[in-house]
Amino acid sequence: MPQISVRGEEMPASPIRKLVPLSDKAKEKGITVYHLNIGQPDLPTPKVALDALHNIDRTVLEYSPSDGYRSYREKLTKYYASYNINVTADDIIITTGGSEAVLFAFLACLNPGDEIIVPEPAYANYMAFAISAGADIKAIPSTIEEGFALPSVDKFEALITEKTRGILICNPNNPTGYLYTRNEMNQIRDIVKKYDLYLFSDEVYREFIYTGSPYISACHLKGIEENVVLIDSVSKRYSECGIRIGALITKNKKLRASVMKFCQARLSPPLIGQLIAEASLDASQEYMRDIYDEYVERRKFLIDGLNRIPGVYSPIPMGAFYTVARLPVDNADTFCAWCLSDFSYEGQTVFMAPASGFYSSPELGRDEVRIAYVLKKEDLQKALFVLQKALEAYPGRTI
Amino acid sequence: MPQISVRGEEMPASPIRKLVPLSDKAKEKGITVYHLNIGQPDLPTPKVALDALHNIDRTVLEYSPSDGYRSYREKLTKYYASYNINVTADDIIITTGGSEAVLFAFLACLNPGDEIIVPEPAYANYMAFAISAGADIKAIPSTIEEGFALPSVDKFEALITEKTRGILICNPNNPTGYLYTRNEMNQIRDIVKKYDLYLFSDEVYREFIYTGSPYISACHLKGIEENVVLIDSVSKRYSECGIRIGALITKNKKLRASVMKFCQARLSPPLIGQLIAEASLDASQEYMRDIYDEYVERRKFLIDGLNRIPGVYSPIPMGAFYTVARLPVDNADTFCAWCLSDFSYEGQTVFMAPASGFYSSPELGRDEVRIAYVLKKEDLQKALFVLQKALEAYPGRTI
Repeated sequence: MPQISVRGEEMPASPIRKLVPLSDKAKEKGITVYHLNIGQPDLPTPKVALDALHNIDRTVLEYSPSDGYRSYREKLTKYYASYNINVTADDIIITTGGSEAVLFAFLACLNPGDEIIVPEPAYANYMAFAISAGADIKAIPSTIEEGFALPSVDKFEALITEKTRGILICNPNNPTGYLYTRNEMNQIRDIVKKYDLYLFSDEVYREFIYTGSPYISACHLKGIEENVVLIDSVSKRYSECGIRIGALITKNKKLRASVMKFCQARLSPPLIGQLIAEASLDASQEYMRDIYDEYVERRKFLIDGLNRIPGVYSPIPMGAFYTVARLPVDNADTFCAWCLSDFSYEGQTVFMAPASGFYSSPELGRDEVRIAYVLKKEDLQKALFVLQKALEAYPGRTI
Repeated sequence: MPQISVRGEEMPASPIRKLVPLSDKAKEKGITVYHLNIGQPDLPTPKVALDALHNIDRTVLEYSPSDGYRSYREKLTKYYASYNINVTADDIIITTGGSEAVLFAFLACLNPGDEIIVPEPAYANYMAFAISAGADIKAIPSTIEEGFALPSVDKFEALITEKTRGILICNPNNPTGYLYTRNEMNQIRDIVKKYDLYLFSDEVYREFIYTGSPYISACHLKGIEENVVLIDSVSKRYSECGIRIGALITKNKKLRASVMKFCQARLSPPLIGQLIAEASLDASQEYMRDIYDEYVERRKFLIDGLNRIPGVYSPIPMGAFYTVARLPVDNADTFCAWCLSDFSYEGQTVFMAPASGFYSSPELGRDEVRIAYVLKKEDLQKALFVLQKALEAYPGRTI
């Protein structure tokens, strides 16, 4: 039998995925599992988007342009302008989810052996896309004690080598919910400029910022316009994870030309997803406000509730719909598995994502979990109560 | 400004794509352009598929499983069984088009520097996916004189080195329409077995076989079950290129586990596309027969017409909906561009794909074009007449 590729072996298997069979088994036993583990919003897709879906009157479901429909890209420019991001339709390449945008950015920008610096905990799949491109991620740990703020500039500079080609940030952050300050973004800008790096900036959660602090996009930073690659997706914004529509945006014309070659090879992004995404831009103010208000409430409810459980600590996330919390357990991987395999309280349990999957070093985040607040408040309330009971019962409790 | 990656530079820009601006300009001038250049069927998507689209009653367009919905995969096993391909739902991984299946197969099977052998002319984007994976394609030319039959076994063996990891075939073939015989498939099987290679087999055109010759799938070959990776797509079968649904099928469990890690990184294939593709499996016999009959007629009409034009030669394609024809021109790239930029006959012209994009050596296929018969007969008739007029007027005509 021929061998698997080295990168095929190296690809990380997500610690969340490993728990899915345990969750399935718990459900088979009739246990209610509260899914705090995944960034799949439970909130409805906008009606205007579903209407567009039902009203598609094409008779041939044909290829769309490799960079996406121009009408959609034109309309997106107005959306971005509302965030003071000034781009033209030509600057925007529509991708199959934000995932493809990251992969194509890496393939087009990074040579095998090149390095990118990523503050961690970080979205686990960045690692997978880096491996796909043969590139190495050099992680800089941020800590729960400092609320997951940007590590200091000298820590970035200590990691910069001849092979360093870029910095990747996620802002607001998955998994921590952290929102980079103007000062932090300026620091990133200065490093990017000084070393002429790419700045890959994943900003798919910009709608979800809760503190009144300003949203500073990588696209707002002056003097590094040619270095910035914005990663975007409609998945979270409109509860449309399944339509697989994202975007790669850059003012760097040469880079766009290269990315387009990867886009042309895969022919086109999903046709129907684009029609839905374009319609979603007309989602009402009311829809967007309702969604926002819902997350604001859930966030307050969840974080208050977590910090009330003895031994649990969560910083207050400023954005997105996740938090990384510290639990009084020996090992969060073991605890999360135990919750699914060995524990239930009144027929209920919780499925959380062990934070180990978001760190590159096995030493880090061992007592942390990522919790997504994509459940309605009543369910969050039950989940919090179940979590408290689980911590009381867990044999590996540390305090 | 940071540099583009080496692979970003190396990615081929399709010769067809280069002609698109010329085609657009011709249209702006009011010229009717007959598109013989692209594999986008003009035939309708099955009604049952469009109905499924309109009847989607979900309120959240959420992620689907990374390997696709089980219900769809279960239903696909019956479809494959009808072609004597015996697979289980577990053997099938749903991908974002056949394109992603090829990319993930290469990423999971090939190390940078590994080689795969591909008979050419070949689908141009295989090269792009190989570059993405850092692998090298070693091409074996087949010739129009031999009707694009499989090159002899010794030509394959001459190319095999320590780095050779696989053979890639497309059967029925894009761009030539060639259908590999049982004897040829057995020869491929023997090489694959002898050298323990992967056999990547792209069989997306299996519905379109016109000569009564049997369809021999790579999955029919005994003794290399663990080596075969079947690439599939619903794009051509149901005129659904835009929904981006394909599949990677293999009995090799270890390989599937590796491919799944790439699938999990990109989260899921398109949700709505899967619902449409699943419904399409219920397309009526009548729909499938009408489509088939239409292509049978077009094929006869096109090939007869081509061979009647002085100096033009096309073998009779046995499958798919393309043919590679030889034209009496100095350079098909120049001729195809000239048709769009400098020529029109009674306000019409033709857009053909220069065959150079399907060969690795610039010496090959210089006087060949790929013609897709995805136009209705009346348009094919006009296109053939315009082509004849263009050849009469072209300054670089050779005979």
